[in-house]
Amino acid sequence: MRVALLGGTGDIGEALALRLGHDTDHDVVVGSRHAEKAADRAADYEATLADHGGGATIEGLENAAAADGADIAVLAVPAYYARSTVEAVADSLGGAVLVSPVVGLDHDEDGFHYDPPEGSSLTELVAGAAPAGTPVVGAFHNLPAGRGADLDWELGLDIGLVGDDADAKATVRRLVDGIDGLRPVDVGGLANAAELEAVTPLLLNVGHHGGDEQQGVRFS
Amino acid sequence: MRVALLGGTGDIGEALALRLGHDTDHDVVVGSRHAEKAADRAADYEATLADHGGGATIEGLENAAAADGADIAVLAVPAYYARSTVEAVADSLGGAVLVSPVVGLDHDEDGFHYDPPEGSSLTELVAGAAPAGTPVVGAFHNLPAGRGADLDWELGLDIGLVGDDADAKATVRRLVDGIDGLRPVDVGGLANAAELEAVTPLLLNVGHHGGDEQQGVRFS
Repeated sequence: MRVALLGGTGDIGEALALRLGHDTDHDVVVGSRHAEKAADRAADYEATLADHGGGATIEGLENAAAADGADIAVLAVPAYYARSTVEAVADSLGGAVLVSPVVGLDHDEDGFHYDPPEGSSLTELVAGAAPAGTPVVGAFHNLPAGRGADLDWELGLDIGLVGDDADAKATVRRLVDGIDGLRPVDVGGLANAAELEAVTPLLLNVGHHGGDEQQGVRFS
Repeated sequence: MRVALLGGTGDIGEALALRLGHDTDHDVVVGSRHAEKAADRAADYEATLADHGGGATIEGLENAAAADGADIAVLAVPAYYARSTVEAVADSLGGAVLVSPVVGLDHDEDGFHYDPPEGSSLTELVAGAAPAGTPVVGAFHNLPAGRGADLDWELGLDIGLVGDDADAKATVRRLVDGIDGLRPVDVGGLANAAELEAVTPLLLNVGHHGGDEQQGVRFS
């Protein structure tokens, strides 16, 4: 499959580019608002993969160009840019499945807190902003990005999936399953996204208080 | 320690009574609004423990009498009764640590949803209702009760702890640590309770869609 990582120059994009490049034979395309930055980061990722004995080619393109022809487009952007990024690539998504790993977070002296759109979730916000015919699946919210980007660090983690389109969810399930040490776990429809997203600030708090950052989750 | 399970005739109370009775030498007291019901359930728990080769004695008393003299009182009641139960036992809590495993849940055709008090959490609501000088610690929110009550079922799960009183949290940490297969995990202060409570509907959704109920969580 062709997998576009929109905003893939950031930390979650790096994690997914490296893991997909290392563990799978998908064509990985890094997107950015700036084509040159995308190309630079893609070259960085290729160099890291080469250091780990792989020869994967990673393309780097402007976001809309990255989305064009993709089977899966991952919205690897900060919460604030979720809606505008979807709008910027809407005409290029074609039949792609749009994957949202985005979480709204707040931080104060007590720790990290879940801060979703009023009465909803980022995953549902993305679904509302997506063009008609583009199915949205929530996934990768709880993947610790730094650990994902460290290919020497075993994952052994679960990735919850939410979505209302069974075919799209099955496609994302295969994507997750292709990454070593990740297990896809069905959590139901988009209406169940909030509780999945809320695990991210919980993991940050667990990491902060336990002194062991880069926590992930397993259901057991 | 003397551990009172207020509302301990229900499913989370049963799980804790059996695990504490089986794995520890704490004095376990089951509380209920009705002393006779508490005594009946305590006798049931004793019989189950005897079936598993244990000889633990479990007392059954009206909630306030159960709280009297307890080192730890666990509020093992449905969300709707959390505040009234705290108020009913307030004069008996003395120096006990009050533990809240309570979670506000909603359920519709899409699945289970987190339904906390407006802008807060049940753990914080309990802390607000507790008498001055009674520290509140949130714990056991995510313990699958049916699995906890089945002594033949290994747990291997994490129990997140939230609380603003370090000594009280250390006491509850020891309580959790005494149960085989449970690992206490510090999640910070009471302000971080909501994200911990929200894991419960997530686990119910994971269990529902995976066909494997009684899910718990591990941080890893």
